[in-house]
This record gives sequence, C-alpha cells and structure tokens, in this order.
Amino acid sequence: MRRIHVIGIGAGDPDQLTLQAVRALKSTNVFFILDKGEVKSDLVRLRRDILDTHLPKGTYRLVEARDPERDRAAGGTAYSPAVGDWRSARADVCERLIAQELGEDESGAFLVWGDPSLYDSTLGILEEILDRGTVTFSYEVVPGISSVSALAARHRTGLNRVGRPVQITTGRRLADGFPEGADDVVVMLDAHQTFRRYADQDIDIYWGAYIGTPDEILVSGPLAEAAERIGRLRAEARERKGWIMDTYLLRRHPRDPGRPAE
Amino acid sequence: MRRIHVIGIGAGDPDQLTLQAVRALKSTNVFFILDKGEVKSDLVRLRRDILDTHLPKGTYRLVEARDPERDRAAGGTAYSPAVGDWRSARADVCERLIAQELGEDESGAFLVWGDPSLYDSTLGILEEILDRGTVTFSYEVVPGISSVSALAARHRTGLNRVGRPVQITTGRRLADGFPEGADDVVVMLDAHQTFRRYADQDIDIYWGAYIGTPDEILVSGPLAEAAERIGRLRAEARERKGWIMDTYLLRRHPRDPGRPAE
Repeated sequence: MRRIHVIGIGAGDPDQLTLQAVRALKSTNVFFILDKGEVKSDLVRLRRDILDTHLPKGTYRLVEARDPERDRAAGGTAYSPAVGDWRSARADVCERLIAQELGEDESGAFLVWGDPSLYDSTLGILEEILDRGTVTFSYEVVPGISSVSALAARHRTGLNRVGRPVQITTGRRLADGFPEGADDVVVMLDAHQTFRRYADQDIDIYWGAYIGTPDEILVSGPLAEAAERIGRLRAEARERKGWIMDTYLLRRHPRDPGRPAE
Repeated sequence: MRRIHVIGIGAGDPDQLTLQAVRALKSTNVFFILDKGEVKSDLVRLRRDILDTHLPKGTYRLVEARDPERDRAAGGTAYSPAVGDWRSARADVCERLIAQELGEDESGAFLVWGDPSLYDSTLGILEEILDRGTVTFSYEVVPGISSVSALAARHRTGLNRVGRPVQITTGRRLADGFPEGADDVVVMLDAHQTFRRYADQDIDIYWGAYIGTPDEILVSGPLAEAAERIGRLRAEARERKGWIMDTYLLRRHPRDPGRPAE
C-alpha cells in the first residue's frame, strides 16, 4: 500500500519544523513539489534547503511538476476560474505523480507551508483522488506551525482576548464587511490590503510579511497610523522580491459601553 | 538582562516540539512550572519527560510553584473569581519566581501546552509583571502546534472550507448561540459539552481528547449521532484519568439554497 504524508513545514523559518515532521521527512522516498512558476521559486528553494538540512543526498527522490494555472490548465484546456475546477486540475497532476512516481510500497510526501489545516488544498485534493478510485493510498497529516501562530509569536500577542473568540478569514471576506461576532480577526490570502477599508475605525493591526525568514517585516499599531506604512513597505518588498506572503491580525476595540451600538 | 522564553510545546505529543523549541530549551537555565495540583499531575510529568528527553540532567534548574486557585490565592487572601484577579495572582507568583530564581544573566522559560497565542495567559502575565516595573527582563515567544492544528491533523480535515472563515471560541460563548458569520467553529475550554445544544441541527463534529498522547480519543460524524457517544467516552475517560482536555470542530452544513433563511 502506498503511503503519503502531508507535512506542515511551518511559516518560513526552517527551525519551525517539528520533530514529528523531521521523522516523516526521513521516512519519505519521494517528495512531490508543485512549482507555482518563477515568481515563487524562492519558496521552492526554501523547501529544497529543508530537505538538504535533514536528509543525506541520494536517500530520496524529488519530483517536481508545474502547478496548473488558475485560469487555464498547463495543457491549454480552458478551465473556469472556479476553485473547484482548479482543484480538479491539481488533483489530475497529483494523481499522475502518485500513480507514476510512487512505488507500491513506497512513502510519498507533500510539504505544505504553515499548517495543512488552514487555507490549503492538499487534503481536499487527496480526498478527490481517492474518490476517483484509480489509485489507492493511505495518508497521514503532520500538523505545522501556521503563519497565524508565527505572526502572533513574533508580535508576542495572543490571538484572542480573555474568554473571547478569534475568527480566521480571507481578504475577500473582509471586503464584505468586518466579521460579526468577533473583534479579533486574522486575515489570510489578502492581495489587496483590505485592512485599509477599516482605517477610520478604532482597530489595532499586527501585520507581518515573510514571517520567520531573513526578509521578515513586522508592523503593529493603530490601523489609522500603520495602514500607510504597511502599504509602502509591502509595495517595496513585493517589487524587490517579486512576490509577497503576508498575514495580519485586526483587533477592534470594544465600543465604549456608554455609547449605544449603532 | 534576564531573558525569558515562552515556549509552545505542542498539544501532547512530545514529537510536536519544533526544532526552534528544542533550541530554546537547550538555552534555558531555569524552567518555571506552575502546578495546577494533583488533578493535572500527568501534565507536569509530560513536561518533565520533555526536558529529560532533550536536556542532560544537571544542566538546568526546575522551579515549581503552586498555581493560585481560581477562587482564592494560595495564601488565603480572598480573590473574586474574575479572570483579571486570577491573572494578577498568577503574576504575583511569576514575578516572585523571576526575581528570586533567575540570575541577572540567566535565561528562564515557561512551557505552554499547544500554542502560547491561543487561550493562554502567560503573555498577559509577563506584560503585567513588566508594567509593575519591579523586575525587568526581555522575552520571546516560540510558537507551538496548537490543539486546534493537532485536532485537524488527526481528523485529516481542514479547519476552514474553501474561501470561508473559521472561528475559534470557548464553550461559554457557544452556550450563548452558534457564532454568526462562521459555519466552521472550533470550541476550546468547554467543560459542559455545549455541542449537545446543537444536536438537532445539520452539523458534523470532529472531536478529540488527550490529542497526541497514548490516551487519545477521536470521534467524528453527524452531531446528532456522535453527541451521545462523545458524552459517554468523555465521562469514562474523565473518571479513569481524573481530568480531561478536549477540543472540537463543529461544521455546519450550509442551508439548502432553496430554503429561505429563518
């Protein structure tokens, strides 16, 4: 029976690997890496560095494939931009990798930035492949330090306030309005600095980019003051590196209890 | 200058330590452990086992103190059950430990289950001590695998659905109603199986206790079917071990789009 590990490798600092992850790396015959193209080749290199650090050369195989584009598959077939179709295209690629590159008694691994449970499609893809039934395997998940935990640690802050909830959401959702029922909100996958919409409110931001790497940038403070600085730093870094990965926590101050809710 | 590390040590599996955490352990002269009393001595032993595994005996000091009770301080002074007062009582204990047990050039550490950013008071306590100004130190946070990530990994599920938010909240909050604006809800600190209130709704539960330890129990499925089983297993385990730590994810199915919202 083929075995697959989905391994969370932390938010960027190679020392954020867990001992469990290192153990899983060492038991792996074949690593599958989907390359998102030139723009994120830094990330591919970071993953290679992790393997070089922990595994002797020649003890494993590395299989790279091109990640399907969101708008069209590598082969030229038209796909709608819907995430479901994109996921199916990725499942096609992964299904082929597993069937062709992984021997019947071998162990394969997908390395996932952060934690595989947060805004990552690998688990959904594996389930989709198993549902198709053309290739069988067992799989296990190794949790990782999420960019959310890494962000909070670097800012030395909790995610929640005492006894209160925290919501983790996307930039797109935040654009629809500040989430109801939570004053502490972590935003991921935001390419548009959606926090700027709330700069007139009494909110603190804890922002970080390239967290845990030598390029790390951290900014925190009242959103009204920090928003512009973050925008500038973000644009400069993106220009310099060609890509950016950032995450932030918005902490809304409770309304003055003497003031009626609107 | 005294230095302190707040180290996330994962949800119970000693292999969930990160390499960064191991490095921080090795640079520590004094470990501070607050003992919650007999009932959780298993947890104190687990922490001692982690130290024994990674550090040669005689290379560090271990200082244990009694965690103040929620309703009254160890010295007999009456405290209100308010969290703020309890935190101040813990700050008193920690302030004394740091001032008396940590040399000026030494490094101390607090070991935190899971991740220090989620429902843990250590960071707030350190800030309170620094605010008092009687003892000075620098501190850093080492993120850990939260019980939330560990739960999701063991159930091999994501926390969020594609493009949708997830909320992390407490049992007490859940008792006030299912959170607005999120259909995926992780519940921590729930001593009362609050999920039972929602057993008539179309919700799946992913539940786990003692995650990552040899006592681990996992149950998942439609809440209506799983609730009773979880209640039974939970009561048995609690009786057997004297304490329980559990966490769960509730995943509400979206309303049938043809059905009007209530």
